[in-house]
Formats: sequence, C-alpha cells, structure tokens
Amino acid sequence: MAVLIYTEDVEDPRLDDFRDLTTADRRPDRPGGRGFVIAEGTVVVRRLLASRYRVRALLGVERRLAELADDLRGVDVPAYVTSAGVMARVVGFHLNRGVLAVADRVPQPPVAEIVAGARLLAVLEGVGDHENLGALFRNAAALGVGGVLLGPGCSDPLYRRSVRVSMGNVLRVPFAPLPGWPGALEELRAAGFHVAALTPRADAVDLRGLPNAAGERIALLLGAEGPGLSAAALAAADVAVRIPMAGGVDSLNVATAGAIAFYQLGG
Amino acid sequence: MAVLIYTEDVEDPRLDDFRDLTTADRRPDRPGGRGFVIAEGTVVVRRLLASRYRVRALLGVERRLAELADDLRGVDVPAYVTSAGVMARVVGFHLNRGVLAVADRVPQPPVAEIVAGARLLAVLEGVGDHENLGALFRNAAALGVGGVLLGPGCSDPLYRRSVRVSMGNVLRVPFAPLPGWPGALEELRAAGFHVAALTPRADAVDLRGLPNAAGERIALLLGAEGPGLSAAALAAADVAVRIPMAGGVDSLNVATAGAIAFYQLGG
Repeated sequence: MAVLIYTEDVEDPRLDDFRDLTTADRRPDRPGGRGFVIAEGTVVVRRLLASRYRVRALLGVERRLAELADDLRGVDVPAYVTSAGVMARVVGFHLNRGVLAVADRVPQPPVAEIVAGARLLAVLEGVGDHENLGALFRNAAALGVGGVLLGPGCSDPLYRRSVRVSMGNVLRVPFAPLPGWPGALEELRAAGFHVAALTPRADAVDLRGLPNAAGERIALLLGAEGPGLSAAALAAADVAVRIPMAGGVDSLNVATAGAIAFYQLGG
Repeated sequence: MAVLIYTEDVEDPRLDDFRDLTTADRRPDRPGGRGFVIAEGTVVVRRLLASRYRVRALLGVERRLAELADDLRGVDVPAYVTSAGVMARVVGFHLNRGVLAVADRVPQPPVAEIVAGARLLAVLEGVGDHENLGALFRNAAALGVGGVLLGPGCSDPLYRRSVRVSMGNVLRVPFAPLPGWPGALEELRAAGFHVAALTPRADAVDLRGLPNAAGERIALLLGAEGPGLSAAALAAADVAVRIPMAGGVDSLNVATAGAIAFYQLGG
C-alpha cells in the first residue's frame, strides 16, 4: 500500500520530482537523460500504475488520491497529500486534475519485438506536434494498432503533453524509434508487411479499395499535417492510399486521418 | 479592393472590433446579441471572406495581409495593417497567426432547409467543448456531412475557438439549433432519415454492420465524451451503433468517433 504523507510545505524537498514541471520534464540531467514520465489525472495515473514504468511518487489532493485507493494497494510508493494551492506552486501552474505521478523511464522494446507482435503497425514521419502524437496513440490503442514506429522528425511520446492527450495510451501501446529511413521500411516488408502510405494526393488509391486480405499485415505510414510524408517515404511504400474527401477540404488532422485508416484496416 | 490602412496606435478607435478578444467575442451588447464572428489566420480568414458572413474589417501584419491580396480583391472592407506588437496589445494576447477578420453574424438557415439538402446529418447532444465542436465541423466538412443540428447542451459553433479549430468549416457546413428534444428526431424520421445513435455500449450494432442501403438518408446522433447520449436520445433513435474497439479502451474523442462514423456512412 502506498504511504500517504501529508505536507503543506511548498519547499519540501521530497516534492522535488514534481517541481516546475513545464521545464523539468525535459531536463537532460534527470535519470534517463530525457526526464521523467509524468501522468496527470486519475485516469492517466491509473494507467501509469498499471504499466511497466516504475512509479517514483504521487502528489495530489486528498479527494483524488482517495479515488486511486484501489490502484495504490500493493504499490510501494510515497503519495504526497497536499492542497490544490500548494500543488500549483510546486508544479508551477494550476492543475485542475488534482493528482500527478512521476515514473522513471524504461528502455523501449526492440523494433523486432514490436514488429513480431503486430498485425497493424503505425509508422510515423515528422509528427512533431505533441498533441497530435498523443492523439495518435489514443486512437491506436482504441482501434487495435499493435505498435507505433517513429521515423525522423517525431517528438517524444513520453513528453508530458503527449502522455496526457493520449489518455495514458503511450504507456500501453509499444513504440520505438525506427533506425534508418526510409530503408527500415524495406525490413518491414521483408517481415511480411504491406507498406501503405496515407496521403491526400488525388492519384492515391481510395482507402476502401485497398486490397485487404484477411490476416494481411499492414504498416501504415502517416506524415505530419501540412507537409505530409516525404517523397522518399512515399516512394518506399507499396501503395499510396487516401481517405476520400468532400470537395474543397484539403485534409483532416493527422490523428483523425490515422483513426479512420486504423478503423478501416484494423477490422 | 480592400483599403489598406496603416496604424501603430494601440488606442485607435477603428480597431475597437478587435479589442480584448478573449472576452469581447462573447459580449452580449454586440450586434447580433452574441458577439462577432472572428477568424484567425490566413486559411480561416480566407474562408470567412468566401462565406455568407459580412466581413466588417481585417487586422493583420503586412506579410499576412499580402498573402490575402487575391482574396481581398473586390471586397470592400478596411484592412488595418500594424505590427505584431500593436496587434497583441489590441487583441489582448499574442496571436501567432498574424491576421484576423471580424464579421457580423447572420441568421442560420432553417432546420427544414438543412434537412432537405442533406443525405447525412450530424445531430449533436451536449457537445459543450468548443474544441470538440470545432473539430466535429472540420471532420463533417471533409467527410461529406450535409449539415449539423444542435440539440441541448451544445456550445456556439461561432465562438472564436470553435471557428479556429474547425479551420473555418463552421462557416461552410450549415447548422442550426434543433427545437424540441428528442421530439425533433421524430421529424427527421418523418423526413426520411434513419436515426442512428453512436454509443460505446456493448449491445449496440457494429457500425460496419449498419444496414446502409445506397442513397439511404442517415441522421447520426453524437453525444459528449464522458456522459454520452442521454437515455431519451438513445431511446428515440432507430438503432444504436458502435465503433468496435480494442479491449480496455473506453472511448475515442467525440470528434474522432464522429469522423469514423462519417467516413463509414458518408461513402
């Protein structure tokens, strides 16, 4: 059972893991070199507690920690209980979710392990926006994507804002950076994946018309909103697919386009 | 051609339409009773200029207004040119999109007109979050939804944040409040619509299995994330449909779920 520790001291050194979060979660001097994994709110904290990440501590108002009582049973971490005001001053902003947890990073699984376990993979290129990246993980988790591979230009899925927008699903969907681009796509093909690039280009195949034999393994390439996939990534794919759109509307948000494709291909 | 007017005076009364926007766009003393329609950024301003809303004025930095030169030809409105610094002080926050336009509201089309023109309708209940509402309009526009009907608890699609997140599509997709709830759904049915309620409930029909005869008209009910549709709305629908989800993941964002359903039903 987590130990509840009451404190109203803003300077309490035991709260240092939670201090000034808008910058601290990117501080390179932290263990792991890229900061902690930070979960905000009961839903995400619950997912962190259930994940393979080792939780260091919790900080929250009494009511929120009480909601997590079941999840904290059998977990040996300190849970600091304080007021919303002290919490805001420690973390550096008002946090209306009322509870935080901090964990250490752990090594990501090797690409080969993710690839071996998946029927549908999302392969991202240039998705630098933390909210889009988080939303993609949320959609991937909901729609049966077995893993996310990160090409060049992607941001860190474990950055605080991505963790929050993903609803904690960055902690559940396996991911790894893909070394070698776009050469690594050839290795996915060799592993039995059909590599499909999602693009708004008019000459792409309608997503609904993609030959999708039962059980076929698909690696879906997704690029950033705006620039889209690079020419090299498009050229390395087996097929370019598009979501049919109403006239005059250029594109969907990348996470939304991903959700539609995951739905179509994951069934 | 719009008249370019240079000013560096923060107190210039001709800029009053743009003043203190975080509150002004909801001030009830403005024409129309609920404030102006405000477009931010070249993409959205362009859509406002092409819409049926009457633009009152633009305010922007020189570079952004130059990008709009083609769109401003034949438009008889003042375009105030200023620096980013003055603009920030007038509107009350830093606006990195560099251009704004303000328009008067116009009456929305009658429900009967929207219904007559659509094959696929989105009917929203309790979508109070401005960003979700804006994202729903963006997705509706991209995926061929003919109109959006607003049940109880929905916020104003013309609120500034919704306009921005929709990428200006609230200015293109017709919408109207639906009087009488859920009784109005009976009128949609009488008009030939099959009324389908989207819900995560396990006893709902898989969206893919919805009998979808070619040309059938569908009104898709969408509720807010969290509470979902009310029991009354679910009871008034012809069928409850769900997006099949991977185990353990409770739900998608309402705009994302809407996008998947629009994609499935709009084809």
